Amino acid sequence: MSRISYVNGVYSEHKDSYVHIEDRGYQFADGVYEVFGILDRNILDYEGHIYRLYKSLKEIGLESPINKSAYKFHIKRLILKNKIKNGLIYLQITRGVAERDFKFPKNVKPSLVIIAKNLPDNEYNDNFKRGISVKTTKDLRWKRVDIKTINLLAPVLAKQKAYEDNCQEAWLVDEDGFITEGSSSTAWILKKSTLYTTPLSSSILNGITRQSLIAGLKKNKLKLIEKKFNIKDIRESDEAFITSATQFVMPVIKVNNFNIGDGKVGKYADIFRKAYMEAVKFS
Amino acid sequence: MSRISYVNGVYSEHKDSYVHIEDRGYQFADGVYEVFGILDRNILDYEGHIYRLYKSLKEIGLESPINKSAYKFHIKRLILKNKIKNGLIYLQITRGVAERDFKFPKNVKPSLVIIAKNLPDNEYNDNFKRGISVKTTKDLRWKRVDIKTINLLAPVLAKQKAYEDNCQEAWLVDEDGFITEGSSSTAWILKKSTLYTTPLSSSILNGITRQSLIAGLKKNKLKLIEKKFNIKDIRESDEAFITSATQFVMPVIKVNNFNIGDGKVGKYADIFRKAYMEAVKFS
Repeated sequence: MSRISYVNGVYSEHKDSYVHIEDRGYQFADGVYEVFGILDRNILDYEGHIYRLYKSLKEIGLESPINKSAYKFHIKRLILKNKIKNGLIYLQITRGVAERDFKFPKNVKPSLVIIAKNLPDNEYNDNFKRGISVKTTKDLRWKRVDIKTINLLAPVLAKQKAYEDNCQEAWLVDEDGFITEGSSSTAWILKKSTLYTTPLSSSILNGITRQSLIAGLKKNKLKLIEKKFNIKDIRESDEAFITSATQFVMPVIKVNNFNIGDGKVGKYADIFRKAYMEAVKFS
Repeated sequence: MSRISYVNGVYSEHKDSYVHIEDRGYQFADGVYEVFGILDRNILDYEGHIYRLYKSLKEIGLESPINKSAYKFHIKRLILKNKIKNGLIYLQITRGVAERDFKFPKNVKPSLVIIAKNLPDNEYNDNFKRGISVKTTKDLRWKRVDIKTINLLAPVLAKQKAYEDNCQEAWLVDEDGFITEGSSSTAWILKKSTLYTTPLSSSILNGITRQSLIAGLKKNKLKLIEKKFNIKDIRESDEAFITSATQFVMPVIKVNNFNIGDGKVGKYADIFRKAYMEAVKFS
């Protein structure tokens, strides 16, 4: 089966899907994006992601190129066309094609690209059972990472550094030594039955999976404190996790080569995964 | 005459020049660039720009997709093909096309795009006579702006803000109130016959035009101090300037609606322009 993507109103073979060399996404990273998790053919937290997409657009002064209702239509079609069972939808909007100039172009329609991707059925469960390793590294990103933009070189370099050290994620450390978040996930630690995660600010992204897990924790009367944590706190923690749209709740068993707890997936991993799965919305 | 661009080994009509939607430049801003000024068909400071290009590539772990000597060949061909007299060459290298994943892909060839642009013959001189207005705004960029990457949304938003306030450039202000640089230029002020500009660090780009102006100042025994300056210093300055590959030395006559000196282009503007033109190398 051929793979199909959506590019500016047209469904095309993925391998033949192109944008102009003067698309502002290519020259200026002048755009925003969302990743939707797909589970058993359902879109996870669709409304949450769309709400954040419109927030990102507004923050950088971009209009949506299509009606709000059209997003779900195109995503559903790509799920069908590409026979996605478990996987993800990647959706990107940029300020469109214009002669290179830093200031916004006039009367230019934003570009919209949507890509569907299948993930192996057992990938999540296998990773969950094993747990992942994390490396901490300096947070070099810009000062508005609450906007989900494609200015991603800093997290790319962080993730690569982690990968070269046999870790699957990087946790980013601010100038005061506190973890802000993962390079593409939210960071959590558990200490004495209480879960900790960084409070919202312009230094982290308001994760949609973060929101759903928090809703699930409340439903289950599990204790959460939104408070910054540092390396010392991580060393003293009993368990640790990351959350993201495609990794849901994923246990962390090692940070910088020291074990979290006994270095195995702890008992809260499953409790939090279930709490998330109870709260996440399917559409 | 049709406009010709270079894309990954092929010269093509500019309007039909495309890159794949999964080029990492488009999804991650995973790439670097250079802008070469073209004056009377000559490339300005070619060696300086190529040296910095290779430095940027190295900093983000990218190999050049072509031999070093091939850059000049392609740039010269684009100047000829597009009949550029005065204008610029924009050159961009990204980590190539790969399935979206933050960490570096393996065995992927970097993408190379080169674009030529004509500028009106009298544009620079007209702007020089008038001088430009500048607006100061918060420096929101990432912590490695010494690397010339395409993560440019922060300067895009800054320039747009300036433009909406009838200014032609934004000067970026760090957390301590000091100017780092312009959104796409180096910032300079003149006080009591001494020129000031921000010293090199990871907070500014090592401007090639900055280097040539400094060489020209030395040759002419003009006084320069590399030292941070703030809004108060700007208010007390007699003249002000920006420098960039396409704007050379450009006088600033207003910052945030207050006049620099008497609000007219001062006598040093021409002295510094000449000093730059003496030092810049043509090829």
